[in-house]
Amino acid sequence: MIIRPETEADIPAIDRINLDPGLLHDGPLPMSDLHERIATSFQAQGLMATLGAELTLVSEGEVHIALPFSERISQQHGYVHAGAITSILDSACGYAALTKAPSGCEVVTVEFKINLLRPAIGDRFLAIGRVQNAGRSLTVCTGEVQAFSADGDTPKVVALMQATIANLRP
Amino acid sequence: MIIRPETEADIPAIDRINLDPGLLHDGPLPMSDLHERIATSFQAQGLMATLGAELTLVSEGEVHIALPFSERISQQHGYVHAGAITSILDSACGYAALTKAPSGCEVVTVEFKINLLRPAIGDRFLAIGRVQNAGRSLTVCTGEVQAFSADGDTPKVVALMQATIANLRP
Amino acid sequence: MIIRPETEADIPAIDRINLDPGLLHDGPLPMSDLHERIATSFQAQGLMATLGAELTLVSEGEVHIALPFSERISQQHGYVHAGAITSILDSACGYAALTKAPSGCEVVTVEFKINLLRPAIGDRFLAIGRVQNAGRSLTVCTGEVQAFSADGDTPKVVALMQATIANLRP
Amino acid sequence: MIIRPETEADIPAIDRINLDPGLLHDGPLPMSDLHERIATSFQAQGLMATLGAELTLVSEGEVHIALPFSERISQQHGYVHAGAITSILDSACGYAALTKAPSGCEVVTVEFKINLLRPAIGDRFLAIGRVQNAGRSLTVCTGEVQAFSADGDTPKVVALMQATIANLRP
Repeated sequence: MIIRPETEADIPAIDRINLDPGLLHDGPLPMSDLHERIATSFQAQGLMATLGAELTLVSEGEVHIALPFSERISQQHGYVHAGAITSILDSACGYAALTKAPSGCEVVTVEFKINLLRPAIGDRFLAIGRVQNAGRSLTVCTGEVQAFSADGDTPKVVALMQATIANLRP
Repeated sequence: MIIRPETEADIPAIDRINLDPGLLHDGPLPMSDLHERIATSFQAQGLMATLGAELTLVSEGEVHIALPFSERISQQHGYVHAGAITSILDSACGYAALTKAPSGCEVVTVEFKINLLRPAIGDRFLAIGRVQNAGRSLTVCTGEVQAFSADGDTPKVVALMQATIANLRP
Repeated sequence: MIIRPETEADIPAIDRINLDPGLLHDGPLPMSDLHERIATSFQAQGLMATLGAELTLVSEGEVHIALPFSERISQQHGYVHAGAITSILDSACGYAALTKAPSGCEVVTVEFKINLLRPAIGDRFLAIGRVQNAGRSLTVCTGEVQAFSADGDTPKVVALMQATIANLRP
Repeated sequence: MIIRPETEADIPAIDRINLDPGLLHDGPLPMSDLHERIATSFQAQGLMATLGAELTLVSEGEVHIALPFSERISQQHGYVHAGAITSILDSACGYAALTKAPSGCEVVTVEFKINLLRPAIGDRFLAIGRVQNAGRSLTVCTGEVQAFSADGDTPKVVALMQATIANLRP
């Protein structure tokens, strides 16, 4: 016989994967500390400097990373390589997840999926990562990369991501 | 020399998939030509040079790209950034798809999903892209990245990808 | 009546994507025709009837499908199986793509990725598929499934999808 | 300064997300118990009975689920709906993960991605889920669905999946 659960508390659930009971009552860090912590972490990412990326916004549940065009990040047709677009969007989603993580936690990307909607043509790209659901140990983010041209046209969305990020004890 | 496209109309694009029926009976290029063509394309990818990646194998339906560790491609804990791992695996899958594409076609990544199984720790990384199914206009590849340590231990798989690549008219 | 195809040659297929150039200037069908066409197609999906799903909204770029809870669609803990949630969301995304497809085209799902955010507990579920980008032959949709409880609480998002759908000649 | 970690033990890592230290030394269940436990769980999945699916193999790290064709699981062109194909493959991957989980754990699907390679035409379908990497709390599986025709032709792979499954304390 199948017992239909009455409430979430009756059943095993993704959002009750348990890292450390001690962490559960701490809540996320104050945003000012978080901004500093994320900026410090960003500066420690060798790849972001190599690509020329810049952290431009940290708010609760949303992080932005900008990337100017350069030939150093191109693919064979001269526009930006999907790998560079993916790199800044992965970092933006990861740091967005960190703004919602229990204090003391690190985050690590478990997996993501990205659709490349059109060629990444532009003078500047902006990756936006947003938290959609923050559980105890897993956070789901969505993100997009917008391409800006020199002539000030409306930016175009060139990529969409859906990502899973894990909270880890330090 | 890389010609940077001025507008989307100058370049092959996902949203202009429309294979020439004449191509459908041509079949793939002979492998020797393909190897040269892929090597030339690889050298035109600014990002691969920036990361320090190297094309190491081109065979029918399978392409390998190697990447030595350097701090320039690290994330904040010092190991290799998921974005760098993703970049070489995306290129490996895309070129694997190209080995099965009708002659005269270009390829472009439509989307992919990657699982990061463990930290990308190692002295050298090898991305392997393999064609699983090649249709007229869409090819599905799977891929993995193996991490090699200096002490000669068995390599560990650090990432798994499943990708969709489109054939485009030149 | 459903005609079961005898061979792949009888049916539209992913690996026969090859839009008729003549279609490209036609634009999408008027919405009233589309609604009827989608309702007819929906009624021909044996699985939707088997699950107990109902088409509840067709608008340009967005389609809703509702699913009441029943034990027939449960998983082992008694709540709704991820496969049922995925089925209605896949159909919602596919039909949303169809509202943007050139007239005369059929659509077929190329691939999708779904995150299951929490247990699918509720009396009724609503899948919402939305077009994010409609190209000539590929459309990218995002979607979510909301769970509604009997006591009128705010619905909870239980799943997020990102999907790629292809336009096919009939 | 970036400290490059010497070993995995020096760093936060996905495969050290920790559920409950007590579980870590238990190891997986003996296979005979597991087979019974999985068969019992499978019979409790209302959806599997509704679709007409059958559990056909449970081995360490691999599970098979079969599904005969019926109009009750069709889509609008008469072949099998992607949602039914996805449902059996999701269950196969989830149970494959369970064969590698610490004893006492339940599993739940975090997310998956599926490519539908060709129309699901056949008399019988076989979903095969395989564990690729089993960490403490997250397991990554890949899977495929094969289509068998009545005339005994070689089965065709109609779908490929890559999935993330979480271990949960009961």
